[in-house]
Amino acid sequence: MIKKIDHLGIAVTDLAEAIEIYRKIGLEFVGTEVVDEQKVETAFFRVGESYFELLAATDPSSPIAKFIDKNGGRMHHIALAVDDVEAEIGRLQAQGFEMIDSAPRRGAHGNLIAFMHPKATKGTLLEICAKCH
Amino acid sequence: MIKKIDHLGIAVTDLAEAIEIYRKIGLEFVGTEVVDEQKVETAFFRVGESYFELLAATDPSSPIAKFIDKNGGRMHHIALAVDDVEAEIGRLQAQGFEMIDSAPRRGAHGNLIAFMHPKATKGTLLEICAKCH
Repeated sequence: MIKKIDHLGIAVTDLAEAIEIYRKIGLEFVGTEVVDEQKVETAFFRVGESYFELLAATDPSSPIAKFIDKNGGRMHHIALAVDDVEAEIGRLQAQGFEMIDSAPRRGAHGNLIAFMHPKATKGTLLEICAKCH
Repeated sequence: MIKKIDHLGIAVTDLAEAIEIYRKIGLEFVGTEVVDEQKVETAFFRVGESYFELLAATDPSSPIAKFIDKNGGRMHHIALAVDDVEAEIGRLQAQGFEMIDSAPRRGAHGNLIAFMHPKATKGTLLEICAKCH
């Protein structure tokens, strides 16, 4: 069951500059975290029950560096909160959706996540995650 | 003051197909609405305190048709809920942000909205809106 929008992942080229922009817009800055596995540094802002997750590459081989090369800085993914990532993967696969992650893996804050393949939605990258914050 | 994510606008090529996809993903379908001024038909899904707004062009001259020609079907904008759109426009302009709409205008459901210029955030299109739902 999908409970809420957990966070919106937004790829940015300059994290410090982007933090300043989103602070000025009026979002509540929470903090930063480096996710070595993805070669990204993230910054989180609270917005109601959800978060903005700014994503900056820490290395040119990062998936976010490749995304920015192709698309520029822009929205990267939408993460939906669920209780049980493994069960939801099974439910989505049973509906015929292709998953990038056919088993849960660890994302920011060490929580379990899985990405759907963007072709599942015809172009929008969705993540499901449990207790992401 | 930014209160929550009101909705995520997602450009789609085939509204009926996209409604079926997001239903299967597990979002709660609310309904559809044609917004003649923007030449779009929208479909709303409730997700926690926020919504997904699927946007399909009803005419080739629609801004959404042009967006899809350039980008394909994908996330189009993030709408943030505020109490007073006019006051927030003034606050954002005072912070140095450029607005597409320097005065509130009517969006889906007849509510007041304003778009920031995407260069304000270096690439992500943000909308502010009051009582959007």
